[in-house]
Amino acid sequence: MKTKVAIIGGGPSGLLLSQLLHTRGIDSVVLERKTKEYVLGRIRAGVLEQGFVKLMEEAGCADRMHAEGFPHDGTLISYGDEMFRVDFAALTGTPVMVYGQTEVTRDLYEAREKAGGKIEFNVDQVKIHDADTAAPYLTYTVDGDARRLDCDFVAGCDGFHGVSRQAIPLDVRREYEKIYPFGWLGILSETPPVNHELIYATSERGFALCSMRNENLSRYYIQCSLSDHPEDWTDDAFWAELKRRIPKEQADKLVTGPSIEKSIAPLRSFVTEPMRWGRLFLCGDAAHIVPPTGAKGLNTAASDVHYLYNGLRDFYENGSEEGINSYSEKALKRVWKAERFSWWFSSMMHRYPDQSEFDLKMQTADLEFLRTNKAAQQAMAENYVGLPY
Amino acid sequence: MKTKVAIIGGGPSGLLLSQLLHTRGIDSVVLERKTKEYVLGRIRAGVLEQGFVKLMEEAGCADRMHAEGFPHDGTLISYGDEMFRVDFAALTGTPVMVYGQTEVTRDLYEAREKAGGKIEFNVDQVKIHDADTAAPYLTYTVDGDARRLDCDFVAGCDGFHGVSRQAIPLDVRREYEKIYPFGWLGILSETPPVNHELIYATSERGFALCSMRNENLSRYYIQCSLSDHPEDWTDDAFWAELKRRIPKEQADKLVTGPSIEKSIAPLRSFVTEPMRWGRLFLCGDAAHIVPPTGAKGLNTAASDVHYLYNGLRDFYENGSEEGINSYSEKALKRVWKAERFSWWFSSMMHRYPDQSEFDLKMQTADLEFLRTNKAAQQAMAENYVGLPY
Repeated sequence: MKTKVAIIGGGPSGLLLSQLLHTRGIDSVVLERKTKEYVLGRIRAGVLEQGFVKLMEEAGCADRMHAEGFPHDGTLISYGDEMFRVDFAALTGTPVMVYGQTEVTRDLYEAREKAGGKIEFNVDQVKIHDADTAAPYLTYTVDGDARRLDCDFVAGCDGFHGVSRQAIPLDVRREYEKIYPFGWLGILSETPPVNHELIYATSERGFALCSMRNENLSRYYIQCSLSDHPEDWTDDAFWAELKRRIPKEQADKLVTGPSIEKSIAPLRSFVTEPMRWGRLFLCGDAAHIVPPTGAKGLNTAASDVHYLYNGLRDFYENGSEEGINSYSEKALKRVWKAERFSWWFSSMMHRYPDQSEFDLKMQTADLEFLRTNKAAQQAMAENYVGLPY
Repeated sequence: MKTKVAIIGGGPSGLLLSQLLHTRGIDSVVLERKTKEYVLGRIRAGVLEQGFVKLMEEAGCADRMHAEGFPHDGTLISYGDEMFRVDFAALTGTPVMVYGQTEVTRDLYEAREKAGGKIEFNVDQVKIHDADTAAPYLTYTVDGDARRLDCDFVAGCDGFHGVSRQAIPLDVRREYEKIYPFGWLGILSETPPVNHELIYATSERGFALCSMRNENLSRYYIQCSLSDHPEDWTDDAFWAELKRRIPKEQADKLVTGPSIEKSIAPLRSFVTEPMRWGRLFLCGDAAHIVPPTGAKGLNTAASDVHYLYNGLRDFYENGSEEGINSYSEKALKRVWKAERFSWWFSSMMHRYPDQSEFDLKMQTADLEFLRTNKAAQQAMAENYVGLPY
């Protein structure tokens, strides 16, 4: 089999890239390790930057998002019983779009299928060959059946544990990492959200996040120990702990109910450099991870897709290699900004086991400054709604 | 002897408070442990916020400052060979005033002496008595001669190592501290400053600061190890190291010469709460220390003086205790903001022994964000020129 762009990974990054290329008549094939049902079963963030929304529009996949998503003009931040709002719309003219990653992925699958896009599922043993030549190819198996895909370019959209990053030789690859000493315990429940806009909360007992998917589907998180297991936490224990971490007024009106999903995610900051090796390009989690505070994971993957899509367009439409040659530099520049914001926001909002009393005071002072200083809110809002591509 | 306000400490805070009270006819006595010559020999920061300048004007001591000081409209920040300017005047409408603490102190002494203000030097064994009553008094010795000073109020302006803070019982006192794992090696030299405006520089080799006192008097600092001693550093070694830490263009035009002073200062963040106990009020370094990055030490002392002066005025002129009762809360609110800013600026600009590669990337990302984002510069500038009292 032969294609222009071989895309490893059928998550939102790979699908979005494939669909965008399709709008320009650039052929691609997507290889996904799991089934479509499995991919759609993953529960992930759901706060989309305006840049992401525009890419979905450009891909022709934004109709349901605009119909069913929720533009949020701001967010609430609380510490103890003190709470304030950062007004994104007033500060930046831009809202964010609350629309689950699962829905994004579903819309992209639908568009790809409608257009007859080629997606292979249950793909195993993917190997990238000759990425440093003008004629790279992939080998892989589907249900034990060995296959080969020749291509002009390889887009590695296969996440943190995928093969793409590993295909870049260690002597050119440099990795940066921070492991946070806590996790997020999240539940999904069919209850009305405690608040329409998100509440990022910190307290003496740690971080909590109140977020929503729709009017009767809420997603809540609490900072937990890395040694905790989801089954250690009954629903009652979760709700009780959440209530202790959000302002009393919110706790009093929180509607609880049975969880329909409960899981623990670790928090990590990670970046690999470069994001390009020969004709292999890394996108999204394959190249970088952010802690979820501030919802930059999917959005930063989308900014990679933006740079790669435009680079490939430029190559196929104008014969220019400028865009693909500068991909790694451009993408990384924005990646590090998202890493900075996520790290800053995480550092301010979580309790750390080794914090001194002075460190705690600095967190409160940071929050006080953000609450009372317009320029600080402006900088935060610009990051949250998404810095320009 | 009897006075209204007994002021412990004849540094700039104590003298400024004494002089301000004098303008309202409120009598005070200043007790200083050292001689006037010793106090004037201390070399300290010299970047004054507008609020400080206004207090000096209110005290009638601003003429020489306005004649000889240098208003700076901005500052330069460099990392490696990258350098950018933060334009305080454009962002906030306010410059800072470069005028050495030694000169401030000299002007205040002159004013106090001209007004016949009572200052006792060589004071030893100061003890604060009955600060939790309406009739506090001090006992002390001068050249072995025991004395007593009765007063309405005690202002503790005697610095970090003074007796005032220690007079607040441990069960009501809470202290917050951070010791930084490095020091500042500073030299004074009779050379033209490399740049009129200050340069805060960071590099792979650590922090450096280029500052000036006047057209032929420069003050330079480099981050050093806490185990270093000034005598370990020849002038040549200092200049060579400084040049490695500032942009090449600046290093090339740096004029070097013999140092006329060389010393190492540790960096510390420290706050004690509360800043008032009964009729004892702590001001400046007696209550809080900031690392020197951002020049908030003397300026934050001045904001304490502002709140205390106004509280005492309100007491003597209007019989209201509101100002003195709220002194600690008001002063601390601004203190924590200055602590936050100094900690943030220090954290961004120094090398730490335990930094990971990721941490280093976050410093660079912070600097990149500050370089490229107007809101971030706005927030920085507002802090640097001084948040409102």
